[in-house]
Amino acid sequence: MADYYDITIIGSGNLAWHLAPELENAGHRILEVYSRTPKNARDLQKRLYNAEIHPSLDFSESEAEIFILCVSDDAIEEVAQKIALPGRSIILHTSGSQSISKLSYTAISDIGVFYPLQTFTKGKRISFEDVPIFLEAENNHTMKTLKNLGRSISKKVVEVSSKDRMAIHVAAVFACNFTNHMFHIANRILHVQGFDFDILRPLIAETVNKSLDIGPENAQTGPAARGDLEVLDKHMDFLKGSEYLEMYRMITEKILSR
Amino acid sequence: MADYYDITIIGSGNLAWHLAPELENAGHRILEVYSRTPKNARDLQKRLYNAEIHPSLDFSESEAEIFILCVSDDAIEEVAQKIALPGRSIILHTSGSQSISKLSYTAISDIGVFYPLQTFTKGKRISFEDVPIFLEAENNHTMKTLKNLGRSISKKVVEVSSKDRMAIHVAAVFACNFTNHMFHIANRILHVQGFDFDILRPLIAETVNKSLDIGPENAQTGPAARGDLEVLDKHMDFLKGSEYLEMYRMITEKILSR
Repeated sequence: MADYYDITIIGSGNLAWHLAPELENAGHRILEVYSRTPKNARDLQKRLYNAEIHPSLDFSESEAEIFILCVSDDAIEEVAQKIALPGRSIILHTSGSQSISKLSYTAISDIGVFYPLQTFTKGKRISFEDVPIFLEAENNHTMKTLKNLGRSISKKVVEVSSKDRMAIHVAAVFACNFTNHMFHIANRILHVQGFDFDILRPLIAETVNKSLDIGPENAQTGPAARGDLEVLDKHMDFLKGSEYLEMYRMITEKILSR
Repeated sequence: MADYYDITIIGSGNLAWHLAPELENAGHRILEVYSRTPKNARDLQKRLYNAEIHPSLDFSESEAEIFILCVSDDAIEEVAQKIALPGRSIILHTSGSQSISKLSYTAISDIGVFYPLQTFTKGKRISFEDVPIFLEAENNHTMKTLKNLGRSISKKVVEVSSKDRMAIHVAAVFACNFTNHMFHIANRILHVQGFDFDILRPLIAETVNKSLDIGPENAQTGPAARGDLEVLDKHMDFLKGSEYLEMYRMITEKILSR
């Protein structure tokens, strides 16, 4: 049922570090890895069965069928301009925010996007099975291959438009990057008073679980959700002179006006 | 070693629903429960061994040693004005944001604050063992009783000033209430595009774990943390006309300026 592919990984950052072994475990072969930083390429190679370190972006003689760019957003276009690929191959990038057309310099190949919605840290195990993978391709043949590839490692593989992918990326910024910044502010406020961020751990765990269980619409609590203007005033009084007062006010107003 | 107390619970909301049985499990006796809403008092009574429903706020003949107000913030002062207590008793409120002096109408008793830092939902089990409880009292004798009471249900019991408690409450609003609002916005953005909030589940779980593991200072990721102005422009372009653009801009600027 499954199709197995010969794959080359370009880049050696957090995503490559997780994705390459995962693809091997699913039955694909990683033929080559390439990185601008040779040491990183060697570290990645050590995680793999039989991959070679490729010395340049000239892959015109490569036998790989799929080339996956695991490079930073701003390097995609440059790599796409420099890379030389064999005929009848597919090149993918893995970014949430970059257009598929960033790959169009590589005219000889089919192009696509393979965007796993997760944050990756070297050394921290991630189960890909539950990571949604969002796909975009310029033709049906390529999409079919992308679906095979995605389904070999994840239960949740979805074809999306560029606009969908952008919406998902913006939503992820709110739900994760901005959430971490809220934790950062809480941490700063506690630190000034001599408390550790850890005291919030049970409350954060319960809040997040509740929000995921019953949905954020139903899980909103706190003084703004209750319309408790007296407590809101006290909090803003406490934050007077703080760089966080303006943010407290803005988010509070949004919750009040829901 | 432990001291056990005879306790009355005033109020029948989420906190009372969790706290009263927990205190019984720890060895204390709940003598009476009181609620403005008789049905809620009966529901709470059913969760307890031998508590009576008290018909009014006149507790002058009660044998309880500790009276715990589990009422909403804006009801504390009113209850404190109306309640009649026996001599040599202690009355506590459980609020993060209300001054201990809200209880000072009850001049005959010692007063204190017993603030468990957690969000409670009826029907959802909470382990109190890990819930930090923040204490305030007007004298040492009362603080000693509060510490005994707190330690009988939690490993983390801390004496704090009113200002500390306010800081903790404000920090909790950022880390939990505002975080839930970030989830709400993400949910709205996904919904417009036809996606379910659930696709963010693995990413949110990983983000929160990472932030708790290595601290929010070290866990910040995303385009603002990278200073990726091109992606930030794309996101703000995507949000043009949206009520969430201003918030995206403000939080992004804060992360950029860290």
